[in-house]
Amino acid sequence: MSVSTTISLAKFLTKLKNLLKDFLSQDQILDQEIDRFLYETDATSLFKNQAAMVLLPNNTNEVAKIIQAINIINLEIKEFKQENIFKPEAKNLSTINFVARGAGTGLSGGAIGKESSVIISLARLNKLISYDAFNRTAVVETGLVNAHLSAHTKSQKLHFSPDPSSQEACTIGGNIAENAGGIHCYKHGLTSDQVLGLEIVTAQGQIEYLGEFHAGFKNSRLDLARFFVGSEGTFGIATKALVKLQPIPESFITMQISFDSIAEATKFISAVIKAAFRPTALELIDSGAIEAVKAAYQLNLAPKTKAIVLLELDGNNSEIVEEAKLIREEILINFQILDLKTTQDQNERKFLWKVRKGTVAAFGQIAPFWYLYDAVVPRSKIPEAMREIEKISDKYKLKLATVAHAADGNLHPNFLYDPDKDPEVIERIHQASHEIMQLCIQLGGVLSGEHGIGLEKKEYMTFMFSSQELELMYSIRKIFDPDVISNPDKIFPIRICKEC
Amino acid sequence: MSVSTTISLAKFLTKLKNLLKDFLSQDQILDQEIDRFLYETDATSLFKNQAAMVLLPNNTNEVAKIIQAINIINLEIKEFKQENIFKPEAKNLSTINFVARGAGTGLSGGAIGKESSVIISLARLNKLISYDAFNRTAVVETGLVNAHLSAHTKSQKLHFSPDPSSQEACTIGGNIAENAGGIHCYKHGLTSDQVLGLEIVTAQGQIEYLGEFHAGFKNSRLDLARFFVGSEGTFGIATKALVKLQPIPESFITMQISFDSIAEATKFISAVIKAAFRPTALELIDSGAIEAVKAAYQLNLAPKTKAIVLLELDGNNSEIVEEAKLIREEILINFQILDLKTTQDQNERKFLWKVRKGTVAAFGQIAPFWYLYDAVVPRSKIPEAMREIEKISDKYKLKLATVAHAADGNLHPNFLYDPDKDPEVIERIHQASHEIMQLCIQLGGVLSGEHGIGLEKKEYMTFMFSSQELELMYSIRKIFDPDVISNPDKIFPIRICKEC
Repeated sequence: MSVSTTISLAKFLTKLKNLLKDFLSQDQILDQEIDRFLYETDATSLFKNQAAMVLLPNNTNEVAKIIQAINIINLEIKEFKQENIFKPEAKNLSTINFVARGAGTGLSGGAIGKESSVIISLARLNKLISYDAFNRTAVVETGLVNAHLSAHTKSQKLHFSPDPSSQEACTIGGNIAENAGGIHCYKHGLTSDQVLGLEIVTAQGQIEYLGEFHAGFKNSRLDLARFFVGSEGTFGIATKALVKLQPIPESFITMQISFDSIAEATKFISAVIKAAFRPTALELIDSGAIEAVKAAYQLNLAPKTKAIVLLELDGNNSEIVEEAKLIREEILINFQILDLKTTQDQNERKFLWKVRKGTVAAFGQIAPFWYLYDAVVPRSKIPEAMREIEKISDKYKLKLATVAHAADGNLHPNFLYDPDKDPEVIERIHQASHEIMQLCIQLGGVLSGEHGIGLEKKEYMTFMFSSQELELMYSIRKIFDPDVISNPDKIFPIRICKEC
Repeated sequence: MSVSTTISLAKFLTKLKNLLKDFLSQDQILDQEIDRFLYETDATSLFKNQAAMVLLPNNTNEVAKIIQAINIINLEIKEFKQENIFKPEAKNLSTINFVARGAGTGLSGGAIGKESSVIISLARLNKLISYDAFNRTAVVETGLVNAHLSAHTKSQKLHFSPDPSSQEACTIGGNIAENAGGIHCYKHGLTSDQVLGLEIVTAQGQIEYLGEFHAGFKNSRLDLARFFVGSEGTFGIATKALVKLQPIPESFITMQISFDSIAEATKFISAVIKAAFRPTALELIDSGAIEAVKAAYQLNLAPKTKAIVLLELDGNNSEIVEEAKLIREEILINFQILDLKTTQDQNERKFLWKVRKGTVAAFGQIAPFWYLYDAVVPRSKIPEAMREIEKISDKYKLKLATVAHAADGNLHPNFLYDPDKDPEVIERIHQASHEIMQLCIQLGGVLSGEHGIGLEKKEYMTFMFSSQELELMYSIRKIFDPDVISNPDKIFPIRICKEC
């Protein structure tokens, strides 16, 4: 942006701020250097960019009024551009856009703005409005933290089932934007399976309602609420949601199984799924991740362990005891294992899970930064994918540690890096990521399991979708947001945005 | 339509037929009186209308070429209208539209055309193209009969899980159009949960691909394939589908429980769900339906039975044996029952199911016609809904028999009628249906559980959706089909179609 354009933009942002001051208090408008710095990124370490200001509305009406104010200023910007069409200060001036933000725990850059962006934080829309234990639904403001909803409904033995690793911090609105999954989503479904209805504020600042407000069923036409889930903020801002609550399983059994190779571990995983068991978690941890956790904690792992499978069953106690017995006696018996630990005790369970849930903290002892990637292949291709990802990682001289939601074919390779010691490493990570995406698509996989497209993967959309399909998607996006001011620059490759 | 308009339309239809003859053989074009009569309705007894012709393409390319031909003729019609704007033969002349049809087993009039319609039957696109037992997917042509897919994959212990009552006849394409459910969908999901990717022919006659061709997961952006499911033919025609296959449960237990009142039966159902059991079927049969089946078959039911619950469990044998024991010992013990029959034997199972699956045949002994309605309320409102539906039925002097997929709150009231003896009965059924829909929405329910909107319920869409939401839906429909020639007159109330 040229200096004169920057000055024009600043002038209109000041006008916007003046409009906002009519209904927002001082503490709801953050536009100091430090504020913009604090909101410049999400949990993706590779993307950052500062927005013009950060707003903290208290309720849906304030969200609507903020977006109406942006639309008013954008009209002025358009007039200014028409009147000054040949002047440098108008030529590249863009309209003002907005980016909704929950807790900023996203992993694809979805909540990152730019100089013409207003970040709308939903942090204060954090109320549980009501819940209905019998019909198993809750109405929430979307800034409510995922785990807080479950804490409220725990006494009724109900919970909100999507459980991304960030669930203690991330908001339900963020889960809706990204269609979040989690360790238990193979059995219990993604966020899109749990959303029945939405209150949204459109890109024009109107409050609208999508979906069907009924407990067990939604099958009228068309399912806009479910379709909104996973739109990453490009359809407007969801401010309230009617979500399903699921029964908290009565009991669990956790099995930690050690193998001397990834190949043997993935064969075991295949056998479990083939036999139609439905574990609630089926996690795979590779040698790179094992090395990291071994260095960080006392875990009592068998020597020569090169792969670990964590298998968890949940449900009625006598049922899962029987199921665990069958898995041991009919499946596990056919595999070479180094060790098996089984527990139904909560403390031991936490200890067994340490090898998975402690990975990120353990990475910190190896390198100051880590980049977590989201890759998906058909289950049958996991062994091949793991082998090839290792080759790609070696080719780019990267330190690799992989964990996987194996039942879904959802792999999370992690690259541990230190840009101070190795200044070109970030470029090499981008190149490796590019190759991993190509590999996944080649193997019949998809672009994302649970982290979304955001900034991170938008240029890869063409790997998977035809230009016709991308144009269809973009046309639908424009039905919701004709001026493309609701989280622009996300999901769609730049070429498509320009053409449509 | 005036006589002169009819003559104009006939002229353009003849032109279309001439275009079609270039690539379709004589036996693929049905336009005799008898053909049009055979395709004038679906399984809904209350709606019928004849289309101009019925076409039987052999493959996707022929579907595309048919739609391209319709578009060519429609251009001519538009020109004709412009050139003759003030002449009676042009004024009300409409363009030619098309209606996809599977097996015609639909229950909301979705596959019914009108005088300007071409019915495109998918009956010959009935191949299973391939299946992958390991990743549990199949690629099918959408004219493949639901049960035929499962028959092909049975040896691998896999099946296509949506199981509408018509599954021996209905096609997977029809299931996709209507988002079909079935007795087992409470546990195993609707059609939209089983579709990963689609090949479609657009309203412009282009072949396109939607969705993600991966076994276990789909979470890239936006989920057009799932959104297409339930669009009732208004987004174009799905010609191939990549669907999930699910493991056939190893074992089952069927319990037939007799109660002396609907109230007690519904309380039992609530208790089962509250205790977080997950039966694969939980069917409720009211006294009207019991009366019909008792008159038709020897069923050995307890005297004074006023309600029956059929509860079926499926899964691993020892697990479900344990689960059945818990349901008996912890739940059923608290209820007054007249009789309990339990079986794991296939023949006895069929006998116990006769009280549910034999209802429609039994209705035939009471009246020559029957109208099956699709109503949904939250589970907690089932007792109230059943009481009120009985009152509405009495008010309109209708013979009522209700069966219900109770776990979903999905009620199916049946009206048994004879228009020869009672000429005004159809009008009274329409009035009763209208009141039942109002009741369901009032109780927090939705418009349809599994039969769709079609012609039947389109004017009720305003009961549930705001005009903004309907306009959003209609705008998206027009992205797929700008000229509204793909199954027009379905889903959307006339007012919305006119305004958008």
